[in-house]
Amino acid sequence: MARKKTATLQSIADDHKVSIATVSRVLNNKGNVSNGLKEAITHSLIQNGYELANPVKQSQTVAVFVPDYSNPFNIDVLAGVEKAAKLAGYRMILIRTKSQETELKHYLSLIEDVDIIGIISLSPFNDVKTVQQLNAIIPTVMCSDYIYHDHLSFVSIDDTKAAYNATNFLLKAGCKNLIHITSTLNHNYAILRQEGFLAACTDYNIEVSEDNILYFSTINYDLAYSQLNYTFRNNKNIDGVFASSDIFAAAAVKAALNNDYRIPEDIAIIGFDNIDITSIIQPTITTVNQPRFDIGFQSLELLLEKIRKENTVEKQIFLETTLILREST
Amino acid sequence: MARKKTATLQSIADDHKVSIATVSRVLNNKGNVSNGLKEAITHSLIQNGYELANPVKQSQTVAVFVPDYSNPFNIDVLAGVEKAAKLAGYRMILIRTKSQETELKHYLSLIEDVDIIGIISLSPFNDVKTVQQLNAIIPTVMCSDYIYHDHLSFVSIDDTKAAYNATNFLLKAGCKNLIHITSTLNHNYAILRQEGFLAACTDYNIEVSEDNILYFSTINYDLAYSQLNYTFRNNKNIDGVFASSDIFAAAAVKAALNNDYRIPEDIAIIGFDNIDITSIIQPTITTVNQPRFDIGFQSLELLLEKIRKENTVEKQIFLETTLILREST
Repeated sequence: MARKKTATLQSIADDHKVSIATVSRVLNNKGNVSNGLKEAITHSLIQNGYELANPVKQSQTVAVFVPDYSNPFNIDVLAGVEKAAKLAGYRMILIRTKSQETELKHYLSLIEDVDIIGIISLSPFNDVKTVQQLNAIIPTVMCSDYIYHDHLSFVSIDDTKAAYNATNFLLKAGCKNLIHITSTLNHNYAILRQEGFLAACTDYNIEVSEDNILYFSTINYDLAYSQLNYTFRNNKNIDGVFASSDIFAAAAVKAALNNDYRIPEDIAIIGFDNIDITSIIQPTITTVNQPRFDIGFQSLELLLEKIRKENTVEKQIFLETTLILREST
Repeated sequence: MARKKTATLQSIADDHKVSIATVSRVLNNKGNVSNGLKEAITHSLIQNGYELANPVKQSQTVAVFVPDYSNPFNIDVLAGVEKAAKLAGYRMILIRTKSQETELKHYLSLIEDVDIIGIISLSPFNDVKTVQQLNAIIPTVMCSDYIYHDHLSFVSIDDTKAAYNATNFLLKAGCKNLIHITSTLNHNYAILRQEGFLAACTDYNIEVSEDNILYFSTINYDLAYSQLNYTFRNNKNIDGVFASSDIFAAAAVKAALNNDYRIPEDIAIIGFDNIDITSIIQPTITTVNQPRFDIGFQSLELLLEKIRKENTVEKQIFLETTLILREST
């Protein structure tokens, strides 16, 4: 039975020279009160017959960092994360992070008002150290975009192998003058996919010069179309395109048609990601499909494993890709 | 022990030529005081034996409810919200809400672990009462999707007017056998756009039967294509399509081409939203453009107004749409 209360919250607040809201927060275990003050007020409350609320529940929220909201690729990944979170009784919130930021404090400031139990990041980190620091504070799993490290967890695909297989398919079909369209090499995936492209060309003794690789700093359809239109007009013997993004592949389709190439008779085109547009435009586009939902789902499962085993588990998981054959090859 | 206070709050206020409320805000760490002034007043307060309240920072986080992550329409709206939030010094987090949920406690449980200062909802609410309850606890602005009410705030477009103008454009161009492709009428926007479609037809004395309106429960390209393919095969005199979504319009383009219609000679097609795909597929699609970025931006500005005036401001804002003319009309 509760003892008789011998002081009002107001008088306790006055004693500690704080607002009644602060006393109420301590009483209700709501946080945002410095530790020393919290102890002192707790002592007064108990002395005066108050019973404190049960200790604050563990957070049920997982934060997902995304680099942007506009990449359709991410949607299925997020659906996978969300499904796994729901099955485990967690909710998920999305926070956009920008890739320029490098410091730990930036990531912590992002979640300042949010009590979270773990982080899944689709956003690239700039260096291993930042991820390690963050992971030491809050269990963190990199998802899709990753930095390889034995003591950091991620779920992704083997970009090099997927790019090798796609390029190999073009070469096997008889293409001899390939171009590779990709993002600038400050993206980890762009480096790895270029490696796969180059390795396949080497295996077929196809020489690749600087002119065979087109880099774009953003994945923008209009920009890519305009550049490719110029490239195809001035270099009529290109017979194969491996693009590291479906948006680039769609731009290549339009530019090729505009320059009177027949697809796939004169030029074969392969994209990457299998976003909706590849099955909507004419001709439909052959592309590398990533198991997007599973990448998300397994990221959350790995995060839970880390949370439950208190951070001693770190795993690097690569899931399989498949080449979806359509009209462009 | 606290020192004896040697000056009243009023005299400190007088010294700094500010109101006593401002001094009180500094004393109670309530924010809304410029940094330089805050420092000076803090100094006076401490000099005169006052102890400042523990900093209990106000939340810097605005929660944005979204119905899904897959609607490309939302991306620009979110960019607008984010831009305005950044300018005001707030961060934004995204939380997915499902439209089936109706109770206040559902919305509160979504933000259980998150300390937020306001809500912007792109997700539809089921009834006025829920929004009113939520708004009484946390300042809330409906964005894009809304329920009209004098005491609730939203930023959106006039769907009926936009649909009227689009349909009117088709009728003016000579179309006589129109169909309207839309979502099932449990969506507010679908009801309003249908009203606009019907009003324009009435003004042109065009009779509209049940067969002239196709409803879909989800916005799915393949599903719409398959149905429209059947419709166009069996009803060769359709000469105009007003779709309440660009995805439906894109499906109509493919189905029309597949049934040997010439676009726009035999059939004119108008979509809604101006998503990327309308300028990528061949022929490009005429569509209703919403000022998406502005809808998001102004929603956040309206939310700030509510936060700063403590919830006494409720506004209903409609922004202008434009018809973007392309090859399909």
